[in-house]
Amino acid sequence: MNRKIRMGMVGGGRGAFIGAVHRMAANLDGQIELVCGAFSSDPQRSKDSGADFFLPPDRCYPDWKTMIEAEAKLPEGERMDFVAIVTPNHVHFPPAKYALEHGFHVLSDKPATFNLTEAKALQEIVKKSGQLYGLTHNYTGYPLVKEARDLIAAGKLGKIRKVVVEYPQGWLSNRIEEGGQKQAAWRTDPKKSGAAGCIGDIGTHAENLAEYITGLKIKELAADITAFVKGRKLDDDGNVLLRFKGGAKGILHASQISAGEENNLNIRVYGELGGIEWRQMEPNTLIVKWLDKPTEIYRTGLGYLGANAAAAARIPAGHPEGYLEAFANIYRNFAGHIRAKLNGRKVAKGDPVLDYPTIADGVRGMAFIDAVVQSSKANAAWTPLEG
Amino acid sequence: MNRKIRMGMVGGGRGAFIGAVHRMAANLDGQIELVCGAFSSDPQRSKDSGADFFLPPDRCYPDWKTMIEAEAKLPEGERMDFVAIVTPNHVHFPPAKYALEHGFHVLSDKPATFNLTEAKALQEIVKKSGQLYGLTHNYTGYPLVKEARDLIAAGKLGKIRKVVVEYPQGWLSNRIEEGGQKQAAWRTDPKKSGAAGCIGDIGTHAENLAEYITGLKIKELAADITAFVKGRKLDDDGNVLLRFKGGAKGILHASQISAGEENNLNIRVYGELGGIEWRQMEPNTLIVKWLDKPTEIYRTGLGYLGANAAAAARIPAGHPEGYLEAFANIYRNFAGHIRAKLNGRKVAKGDPVLDYPTIADGVRGMAFIDAVVQSSKANAAWTPLEG
Amino acid sequence: MNRKIRMGMVGGGRGAFIGAVHRMAANLDGQIELVCGAFSSDPQRSKDSGADFFLPPDRCYPDWKTMIEAEAKLPEGERMDFVAIVTPNHVHFPPAKYALEHGFHVLSDKPATFNLTEAKALQEIVKKSGQLYGLTHNYTGYPLVKEARDLIAAGKLGKIRKVVVEYPQGWLSNRIEEGGQKQAAWRTDPKKSGAAGCIGDIGTHAENLAEYITGLKIKELAADITAFVKGRKLDDDGNVLLRFKGGAKGILHASQISAGEENNLNIRVYGELGGIEWRQMEPNTLIVKWLDKPTEIYRTGLGYLGANAAAAARIPAGHPEGYLEAFANIYRNFAGHIRAKLNGRKVAKGDPVLDYPTIADGVRGMAFIDAVVQSSKANAAWTPLEG
Amino acid sequence: MNRKIRMGMVGGGRGAFIGAVHRMAANLDGQIELVCGAFSSDPQRSKDSGADFFLPPDRCYPDWKTMIEAEAKLPEGERMDFVAIVTPNHVHFPPAKYALEHGFHVLSDKPATFNLTEAKALQEIVKKSGQLYGLTHNYTGYPLVKEARDLIAAGKLGKIRKVVVEYPQGWLSNRIEEGGQKQAAWRTDPKKSGAAGCIGDIGTHAENLAEYITGLKIKELAADITAFVKGRKLDDDGNVLLRFKGGAKGILHASQISAGEENNLNIRVYGELGGIEWRQMEPNTLIVKWLDKPTEIYRTGLGYLGANAAAAARIPAGHPEGYLEAFANIYRNFAGHIRAKLNGRKVAKGDPVLDYPTIADGVRGMAFIDAVVQSSKANAAWTPLEG
Repeated sequence: MNRKIRMGMVGGGRGAFIGAVHRMAANLDGQIELVCGAFSSDPQRSKDSGADFFLPPDRCYPDWKTMIEAEAKLPEGERMDFVAIVTPNHVHFPPAKYALEHGFHVLSDKPATFNLTEAKALQEIVKKSGQLYGLTHNYTGYPLVKEARDLIAAGKLGKIRKVVVEYPQGWLSNRIEEGGQKQAAWRTDPKKSGAAGCIGDIGTHAENLAEYITGLKIKELAADITAFVKGRKLDDDGNVLLRFKGGAKGILHASQISAGEENNLNIRVYGELGGIEWRQMEPNTLIVKWLDKPTEIYRTGLGYLGANAAAAARIPAGHPEGYLEAFANIYRNFAGHIRAKLNGRKVAKGDPVLDYPTIADGVRGMAFIDAVVQSSKANAAWTPLEG
Repeated sequence: MNRKIRMGMVGGGRGAFIGAVHRMAANLDGQIELVCGAFSSDPQRSKDSGADFFLPPDRCYPDWKTMIEAEAKLPEGERMDFVAIVTPNHVHFPPAKYALEHGFHVLSDKPATFNLTEAKALQEIVKKSGQLYGLTHNYTGYPLVKEARDLIAAGKLGKIRKVVVEYPQGWLSNRIEEGGQKQAAWRTDPKKSGAAGCIGDIGTHAENLAEYITGLKIKELAADITAFVKGRKLDDDGNVLLRFKGGAKGILHASQISAGEENNLNIRVYGELGGIEWRQMEPNTLIVKWLDKPTEIYRTGLGYLGANAAAAARIPAGHPEGYLEAFANIYRNFAGHIRAKLNGRKVAKGDPVLDYPTIADGVRGMAFIDAVVQSSKANAAWTPLEG
Repeated sequence: MNRKIRMGMVGGGRGAFIGAVHRMAANLDGQIELVCGAFSSDPQRSKDSGADFFLPPDRCYPDWKTMIEAEAKLPEGERMDFVAIVTPNHVHFPPAKYALEHGFHVLSDKPATFNLTEAKALQEIVKKSGQLYGLTHNYTGYPLVKEARDLIAAGKLGKIRKVVVEYPQGWLSNRIEEGGQKQAAWRTDPKKSGAAGCIGDIGTHAENLAEYITGLKIKELAADITAFVKGRKLDDDGNVLLRFKGGAKGILHASQISAGEENNLNIRVYGELGGIEWRQMEPNTLIVKWLDKPTEIYRTGLGYLGANAAAAARIPAGHPEGYLEAFANIYRNFAGHIRAKLNGRKVAKGDPVLDYPTIADGVRGMAFIDAVVQSSKANAAWTPLEG
Repeated sequence: MNRKIRMGMVGGGRGAFIGAVHRMAANLDGQIELVCGAFSSDPQRSKDSGADFFLPPDRCYPDWKTMIEAEAKLPEGERMDFVAIVTPNHVHFPPAKYALEHGFHVLSDKPATFNLTEAKALQEIVKKSGQLYGLTHNYTGYPLVKEARDLIAAGKLGKIRKVVVEYPQGWLSNRIEEGGQKQAAWRTDPKKSGAAGCIGDIGTHAENLAEYITGLKIKELAADITAFVKGRKLDDDGNVLLRFKGGAKGILHASQISAGEENNLNIRVYGELGGIEWRQMEPNTLIVKWLDKPTEIYRTGLGYLGANAAAAARIPAGHPEGYLEAFANIYRNFAGHIRAKLNGRKVAKGDPVLDYPTIADGVRGMAFIDAVVQSSKANAAWTPLEG
């Protein structure tokens, strides 16, 4: 089989944000082609959007149900291979379930579902279906995030003691959801976003990053979340104490009212021998600190990096790689996994194509949201993170 | 009166660390002269140390009690004006009390006392004595810390919502207190350090900085402190959720096992309109963030700064001022206050010489330590900060 | 016309570097599709490379001449629209000329040609052909480079006095061209690279960036170039004094033996009222300095930026955009211009699709190389930059 | 002998800038005491200034001649040991000469003299007098500047190839010398400043730093200096190509019209194996770059630094040391050298007290000014740097 992997898209029509990101990420490496979509719940907008992407009108579907059914009927040489889901949170589970059950792989935006119950159900469905399921916790796609994970896994920092992970943003400092800002509107609406606002939207990225890099699982947490903006129904800020299995402790805070912050996800991890620091806004630098020798600056694209970081970079050092490239790494690996399946190639543990987040990460994220909301309601009582 | 202000010192002999810092801070501006000391509990070492500072042997006393008594008997034109106390924590209260009661002003290293009870007692003694009492929460001596405080007091950031204050160090990552490291030894010894280790040593600086800059008081906190290094009796790391009076929330964490960190005190404060960020290791930069215009970089020594920041700087912009200069600002203001008293000059509220930490800060710090230890024992239960 | 713009590629087969960059840049926005190529001077490698990109074998040509001739014969609905040239310098002019003369647009890697004579000839050919010609001086594709240019053009910095532009790299610190490093081999070979090494490869980017941002033309220069690595025939380092028309002065230095430097292109420009600083390795930050107010940090994606910077960004602030995105901006604008032509849309001055480097930049770059080499041979005598 | 070293000061009265810096630097370590001064050419101002420093009126002299003569007549146990000269450039040589000839050591602000002839004469006088002469090229007092020098001297970077040294400031962007700004007034006045403005004031610091760190001597230079501000008689900006003895090349530029720059002295040096980068505005960080391993961050105060860097630091890592501390290192070493002489202690080559700039640096600096001015007049002709 020598052809591009075929993608159908749910959501992401004109005016959407994350859909365009997914398309660029899918385009970048020339491995994937967009062949169809249900880009909007408004059929005409779906058609118009598809035309923007040069799709034939008959593959711009009025809704995802129709799309999945219609594509399933197309001959194998033509129909989509996987569905990319880029809708608001409440429309993650239904099309994912439907697509899996109709024999399509699924790559979904995060969080995986609307709540933990759905996430656990989806985990079962994935398992049963035999299809692939990927989740765009895109920040783990950065080369130096992989390097940090590998350094820690190799024991270079010694036993991990402390984790500080932060995700401050400032864009919801005012009640812009009232002014027609579409991105703000659904994220602050409990019916579309779920039980949490900020914690669901970005706190889950912080949680996922911390667990990915350290290889540790959060055992329990004590959370204090707040809706600072008057009239807002969901949290726009949260502070969380963490305890990891194995004894490490930590802090996680996420915020959308940290005025003047852009998208400042960052993490510091300290072990008995050293520490690492990584900041998403300067993603090509990993600071590695040592007890008794100079701090080192690891940089994307240089020869001393490990195999996983090397594989995740596309261009020589000093040519900055950004958010879209990291996002594209998820797509590239996911597509690589599909290609392996199509070609009947067995992928063993450790195969690079497996390095993308799965439904297990999705369940973990929903359990995190659940625990934070529950803990905060109980005045920051320690609450186990199950899942 | 036109002469230097005369300082006697308790502690700070050969091999000590913070004593040398106090002396350099006192020297810098040529306003203070060291005239006597009880530099060590070992009389010979006290004498030898005094010789290093070119003091006559008869003013190098064998202990602080002798010093205070002897100096009190000297004629006014000769005897010391104030006592600088630079001993371990358990020897803060006794000489302070004795000096105040013998008519001397006191400038003490922090924390003010060994425990909260002593601190409250000292507050009474200070009041009764009519003498001045200063506390070297030196980080508030930096020009841009003053600027941050003034910006917030002027309402430039709007109502404050969130505070993140951190103080990571890594130097106690191993059990160096067993190897004869004097600084480590007393700081990890409950008999000399008090109820807390890291939280008392540096957590109090973080607390003081947060309250100084924001002008807000911590109402209650939930703390999780840990002794990560095996066999250590006091905490070497602590994570704390904060709630301020008036509704702001925050996070404070301090650590001495954050491997590879030097002395990374830093703070971020976010209000409804903007935020500030200041890092002690690059103290001449204050980052001011706004909701809808470019982030600004305020720099020590430039013309647009307020009067207090201007007064706290000594040299033109771009000529970095550091830790000793900030420390010296405490000494300069304190000496200025003594001089005003000596000259019978009345100092009104807002007079620059009043800008140094006092026993009120000391009580606050001890209350913080108390609350953190208590909360942590109660599994991070919310605990009010009284004092 | 609603279809993707069709690209044929010359060079860029397996093992090449810049070809892959061009393909990713072309892919990113889903506006361009690769339809054919002469990817290598080795016909089999050309075919194999084309298969990597899922091209049919009959459109993987054995050489560029064959490709241009064959494509010219295809029906309009099928044949390529433009040729991307990604070969070493000595193979820039011939295929560009041939393609233009056969009715194809050309997008070429820089420098435009092998020498100034060719560049001037090409300028004539472009003019005569009526086809479009773009040049991938990709660094001008960054959003904040456009913002810097616009700030200066609007007079915000006042009259420009001084320009400092640098391009240090370290990868040629050793004679790696002897060890089979393909990228190093042709760049250090006068027969493939031209009269200059480092100055041609990266010095031209620095020159182009300086003239783009300031809107000023270099009048004359005094250059001292050196081949530090023993046995190397072309310069690997160059220091240049600049004088601009209108009175500004400056410095340009480029180096490939600045050990430990990655790809550190950067520029500072100072006017009577303020200055700007931009660094390619952190491209989403533009530092704007003022005489009498705080330095400002402009960031990609924020609302206060001008229209051109806004148009050149794809995602919200804090989601870092990198080298490929800037490169893709050249492709996007070039493709936009082709589309306008195909659709018969007139593009007026100032139209965003015109914001890509053209043959005029190419001539300028070759004149710069010429002047530098000439000046250096004359012991850094002032030499006019003509073109 | 166990007493403080006694300093007399020429210049530095009320309203002066650099005099206060010298006094703070002299005060810091408690090794030096100010005993007398001729602080101003106005006798009353001299007296008033002395009172600010708590000096007795009879040692506040009306002029430096009187001071030197009067102090020479005082008994050895009382009179000053050395003269600190902190006047504008045209009043450096005369008091230095007079003091040396009257048996006093001299510590002078830079540049050493008004012109090269004076500098060479002074070199002879110093030699003949047997007195010590120090020059406050204070930037070489920073710990990490010493570390950089020692790394290079030890061959860690391999043979040096390239040096980039910069000193941009912006404070003379406007003609503030017309508005009564005293510092600007004499610096832009050829009668007080000498043949050069910016190049003499700060260019010499850059030259000194480059030669100190690399251990190389500038062989010849090609300079293009400019007075950008209308009506200004001396250069306010200069760009210089450098060739060092032994084959290294470089660039030096200094500016006082780089709007928005504070005091941004910085240097980068590249050898065959690695490079270093140091910036005065963040002086506690030295970036060490390598060909094939991660960049390292050396920090003041950490245990891995060499003996000289360690000796030049006063406080633990992470407690920033600044401009005054570096300045004080010159004073401390100079005073240490005087003390050694007073105590009859022989100081061998490599003794830390010898680590301060001497008249040799002074001659070098004046030769640099001379060469730059001469080269620029000859349209940037290569001009040897003699001295």
